[in-house]
Amino acid sequence: MDLSPRQAEFADAALRLVARDGLSAVTFRSLAAEAGMSLGAVQKAFPSKEQLLRAMFGRLRETASLPALGEPGRPTLRDWFVALMVTVLPLDAPRRAAELQGAAFVERAPFDAEIGMAVAASDQELRAAFASLVRRAQAEAEVPASIDPDATAWAVLAFMQGMASQLTYDPVAEEAVRDQCRLIVDALLHGSQAGEHDEPASP
Amino acid sequence: MDLSPRQAEFADAALRLVARDGLSAVTFRSLAAEAGMSLGAVQKAFPSKEQLLRAMFGRLRETASLPALGEPGRPTLRDWFVALMVTVLPLDAPRRAAELQGAAFVERAPFDAEIGMAVAASDQELRAAFASLVRRAQAEAEVPASIDPDATAWAVLAFMQGMASQLTYDPVAEEAVRDQCRLIVDALLHGSQAGEHDEPASP
Repeated sequence: MDLSPRQAEFADAALRLVARDGLSAVTFRSLAAEAGMSLGAVQKAFPSKEQLLRAMFGRLRETASLPALGEPGRPTLRDWFVALMVTVLPLDAPRRAAELQGAAFVERAPFDAEIGMAVAASDQELRAAFASLVRRAQAEAEVPASIDPDATAWAVLAFMQGMASQLTYDPVAEEAVRDQCRLIVDALLHGSQAGEHDEPASP
Repeated sequence: MDLSPRQAEFADAALRLVARDGLSAVTFRSLAAEAGMSLGAVQKAFPSKEQLLRAMFGRLRETASLPALGEPGRPTLRDWFVALMVTVLPLDAPRRAAELQGAAFVERAPFDAEIGMAVAASDQELRAAFASLVRRAQAEAEVPASIDPDATAWAVLAFMQGMASQLTYDPVAEEAVRDQCRLIVDALLHGSQAGEHDEPASP
């Protein structure tokens, strides 16, 4: 989606409203006030709310990027997963704004096929990257061969998403979050020993 | 919050709109149409959108209940966690509607202190119940003493919340979800052996 400079300016102003008051606070009227422009100027830039929403989503995807975290999966996958979680979780004002903006589109995803597909594709990309890091860590003997790379990737992402959501309304201090993440990542990357509990030992 | 029968009827109609099109689809006008009443009747029942929102939240909490799952944590905690996940995740139309209605209030939680506190309290109650089940399973030697009950409870809830959100826009077949949940629950309840990787063996 190619945006005019004016459209991009309005989309960014709308994203500021989302971070402050949620998606439901974005109306053509509130957006005009936030951008310091007339209602007519907003309506001229975006004939429909749908088009505004898509422009906001486009800007979010353009400007959001994973933080610089060094080489993925290094020095160890465990340390990197913990660092990733602490870096993206909403533990201060800028990360909180980013989380609330992303969450607004996750909230729209079930009702908008285009946004839904884009969010699902982005999840799948992250899970594939995580799973491939798990496979490498298995090859390097950092984590046991018995854990399932895809299930682990799925769990890490679901866990991050759930935690991020929770921290927006129930804040926890960064050090406590880091400790919890460390325990969970250790549990997920240790994994259960195949057959240890459920199957008789092989003869 | 005590609702008149008319207010309850409108709140339920608004929750149907949320399940169909999201919270942003709820306006006094769309609600009047959904309930088959006049706009004036809605405005008389709810002088403000805020009051409507609180009534919806009240109805949701009144009518939503955890599914009957037998005795918590039985026959084993592992089996019960997996059964709980499969029972609450949005894997068919009724569970999807319930998830979307709940998610709408989670989305409001960061911006509305009253809703935020209620959602956080409900999370805390669930985590406390999960942690106490983990402690019992440790006492009964179902799970190792080395895992942290509170971190595990926190992870299970965050994981369920993230998965539930994801399944509303990126559906997965129930059997595959059950398999993934089983692997993750096994990993979380196995836990890493304290000191196994990070510390030298004690003398």
